Amino acid sequence: MTAPVKPAWIAVDWGTSNLRAWAIGTDGAVLAEASSEDGMGKLARDGFEPALLRLIGPWLDGKPPIVACGMVGSRQGWCEAPYRTVPCTPVDRSALVLAPATDPRLRVMIAPGLKQVQPADVMRGEETQIAGALRLMPDYDGVLCLPGTHSKWVHISAGEVVSFQTFMTGEMFALLSEASVLRHGMQGDGWDTAAFDAGVTDALSRPDRLGARLFSLRAEGLIAGLSPQAARARLSGLLIGTELAAAKPYWLGQRVTLIGAEKLSSAYAVALAAQGVEASRLSASDCTLAGLASLSPQTEAAR
Amino acid sequence: MTAPVKPAWIAVDWGTSNLRAWAIGTDGAVLAEASSEDGMGKLARDGFEPALLRLIGPWLDGKPPIVACGMVGSRQGWCEAPYRTVPCTPVDRSALVLAPATDPRLRVMIAPGLKQVQPADVMRGEETQIAGALRLMPDYDGVLCLPGTHSKWVHISAGEVVSFQTFMTGEMFALLSEASVLRHGMQGDGWDTAAFDAGVTDALSRPDRLGARLFSLRAEGLIAGLSPQAARARLSGLLIGTELAAAKPYWLGQRVTLIGAEKLSSAYAVALAAQGVEASRLSASDCTLAGLASLSPQTEAAR
Repeated sequence: MTAPVKPAWIAVDWGTSNLRAWAIGTDGAVLAEASSEDGMGKLARDGFEPALLRLIGPWLDGKPPIVACGMVGSRQGWCEAPYRTVPCTPVDRSALVLAPATDPRLRVMIAPGLKQVQPADVMRGEETQIAGALRLMPDYDGVLCLPGTHSKWVHISAGEVVSFQTFMTGEMFALLSEASVLRHGMQGDGWDTAAFDAGVTDALSRPDRLGARLFSLRAEGLIAGLSPQAARARLSGLLIGTELAAAKPYWLGQRVTLIGAEKLSSAYAVALAAQGVEASRLSASDCTLAGLASLSPQTEAAR
Repeated sequence: MTAPVKPAWIAVDWGTSNLRAWAIGTDGAVLAEASSEDGMGKLARDGFEPALLRLIGPWLDGKPPIVACGMVGSRQGWCEAPYRTVPCTPVDRSALVLAPATDPRLRVMIAPGLKQVQPADVMRGEETQIAGALRLMPDYDGVLCLPGTHSKWVHISAGEVVSFQTFMTGEMFALLSEASVLRHGMQGDGWDTAAFDAGVTDALSRPDRLGARLFSLRAEGLIAGLSPQAARARLSGLLIGTELAAAKPYWLGQRVTLIGAEKLSSAYAVALAAQGVEASRLSASDCTLAGLASLSPQTEAAR
């Protein structure tokens, strides 16, 4: 029998598709971690408390404080944590919202997302990763890029989020490669680096022509023998290249750090390098944990 | 009891999603029509003959010839009718392919699609609409635009298809408005003409920024009260405007005719008019029927 987990506090990253939790010790070390597919998108309002208890019930004996970020704080989430407005610091402990719970062991504080009035934009979850990145890189001035389903480009100055912009690149890739007519020529695994690079270059040089390039992937598969892995890699390159073209004001001549999953960040790093930008990289999980730690009462007590 | 339908020939438009048929008299008049949802996408190779018999069995007593166009002739269709290569006439009776059938009353001739080698592109079904348009507008020189799931822009000269280009505009609109995160702010019916126009103008002036504009639709719904009908209309405008920007070499200074469904053609006509192009319009069904008629043995006999 393993010893019971007795965390000082619990970190929770609760997105649309997944729920992840970490039990953190008094020294900041991760004592245990757990995850489930009880994402916000699958839960009704009264489903959040049971989902969390299923995942971390065994950690709750000492009634540790819980800090959560992500879509759990959206209007369709457990309880709404109203957006803070940029320019502002990425997170603010005084803006945490206490989620209503019936189990007396649950004290869940939810971090609000950020909004930008003009051009209109929003984020939820990334603000915590940004806070974590600034904890890992104190005094960072420059640009953060968080590639993913909805990629974010974020301008950071003097510890504040000055402005940001969202691109639906990851979601577009999923829809086009899995649900559109292009899916017929993209089955299987494998990757074609040259095709990815060509897609990036093509899109960066003529970003206005994306619409004209997509169907070619299908047509070349039908009449010119384009392989599935080359088609998928070129689609990824075209979409990322189109994003980079539109995000140019963010990265041109700037210090850039990528925060994301290994493989995706690597694709962005390669594409940026071809434009003369050597981006640093941080792991998304490291940033999430560091950001949640900056919000934990434990951190406050240690100050 | 109604009199039996005894057509001189039968016209069939067999696409991915739908099957439509018309019984045509010796004078070219439509005696009857029928349709089902037995599109190519739902049928295995041996499902085509039964699907056709279900729909038009009662018309077959006189063993009338049947002319079909569309995805029924694709590799996944009833029997492959290999692409003809542009530049060439849109259709050619000598290239029709006889579909294998067990019922002796069935003599189904399938029209091939067109391919373009460089840039790679393909069409199936539209070539027959193009042939119909050229029958309805003899000596037409200029550009045809066939808006739809996969919009086609086609350069016509001296009765031939010189070149063409496909845009996935309709499919992108369906995916983004029904399957992406944007769907949350686009429920219901209704249309906002001003929002459509603004989307077109915006995309035409900065087509490279489409990726940056999409998520704003969601963000403005969340924080700026953008209505669902305005969000949907602006998305449509952004996508059509992006298509028009990339298709500019086709329409700039050209005679343009739109072939498509009433509402969609109207949206394109409005967008083109704002660019100083007064496009003519033809109905897609009229063009399909006229194109199939140009392929029917009946027409040959009448020469």
